[in-house]
Amino acid sequence: MDFSSKLLENAVEEISYLPGIGKRTALRLALHLLNQPLERTTDLAQALVNLKTEIKHCEKCNNISDSKTCEICANPNRNHALVCVVEDIRDVMAIENTNQYKGVYHVLGGKISPIDGIGPNQLEIKSLIEKVSSGSVDELIFALSSTMEGDTTNFYIYNQIKEFTITTSTIARGISVGDELEFADQVSLGRSIVDRVPFQNSLKN
Amino acid sequence: MDFSSKLLENAVEEISYLPGIGKRTALRLALHLLNQPLERTTDLAQALVNLKTEIKHCEKCNNISDSKTCEICANPNRNHALVCVVEDIRDVMAIENTNQYKGVYHVLGGKISPIDGIGPNQLEIKSLIEKVSSGSVDELIFALSSTMEGDTTNFYIYNQIKEFTITTSTIARGISVGDELEFADQVSLGRSIVDRVPFQNSLKN
Ligand SMILES: [Zn+2]
Ligand SMILES: [Zn+2]
Repeated sequence: MDFSSKLLENAVEEISYLPGIGKRTALRLALHLLNQPLERTTDLAQALVNLKTEIKHCEKCNNISDSKTCEICANPNRNHALVCVVEDIRDVMAIENTNQYKGVYHVLGGKISPIDGIGPNQLEIKSLIEKVSSGSVDELIFALSSTMEGDTTNFYIYNQIKEFTITTSTIARGISVGDELEFADQVSLGRSIVDRVPFQNSLKN
Repeated sequence: MDFSSKLLENAVEEISYLPGIGKRTALRLALHLLNQPLERTTDLAQALVNLKTEIKHCEKCNNISDSKTCEICANPNRNHALVCVVEDIRDVMAIENTNQYKGVYHVLGGKISPIDGIGPNQLEIKSLIEKVSSGSVDELIFALSSTMEGDTTNFYIYNQIKEFTITTSTIARGISVGDELEFADQVSLGRSIVDRVPFQNSLKN
């Protein structure tokens, strides 16, 4: 692209470093900001810098937080002995949005992936083991994605905690609510039969 | 969406004000920046603020520019008597990328659109008329989009300048180079026949 302005070229370049945003989209966004009041740009810039410089990680669960302890861990109405292990904070948000979970979380910050050079020490696994060994956990729910890396991570953690007398579970996999059986993928359909639940349970929802 | 952090919520909201970016994409971009070095965020923020606060409009053609006169207008090798009238700076960039044009531009900043409340006075039309009446223009090329608003704008300008002895032209419409005739839209195909050019001209490219 041929820019008549270094200022524009520079802005387009910085925007296009964002994932999924090419030069053409970056140009459209930059020109949009040029047509908007100055506050739109300064508010955006300030919000990004504030996010990056002021955000904290909850010292209990590693969820991002504006204070030392996140709102979930600070909530006395949550069950702090029920801990859901997730990869990242997007998973926390997704589960919170269901309004079905009243326990707390433990955010690993990823999953074990030798190809990407991510081992147990790059993740918040040690703090999870310590949490379990301190006796404060009754049940650990594994809610990692069902990929090889997710399974590897589950298994690594399971091996470290199996000596403690706690319940471990994983989230149910199966056919999505509302899905037609004939269009479901084989693996999910198979899991939904193997992991079938008492019929009475299905009447609860 | 349920945010555990006001900082994150605020950043997502500001990002999602950008056109074509929903809350879900905004969240993905914010979390991406959180995983990157601080410079990525501060460089982006600074580039946007610099663009908005330091950009100028060329006093000759209204193209955006880092100085009072844009690089094109300041270039003595361009034909300053040949002026291409365009809607916005994206059109300047598109034409410059073809490397086929050696004249200069006049950026209107939009087109006449009564529905959007845009009349001739909201556009850089007066300065174009002055440019023509000063006698410095030999040919005016209309390169607006071929919509009702584009045609209205062309016609409005044409009526203001027809008393002056300059050449006026519009960019050629027709079948895109490489397109199959059978798949071309009727209007473009019709225009390509009516506006046919001497065969020898087609041998130049
Ligand atoms: Zn927490
Ligand atoms: Zn200029």
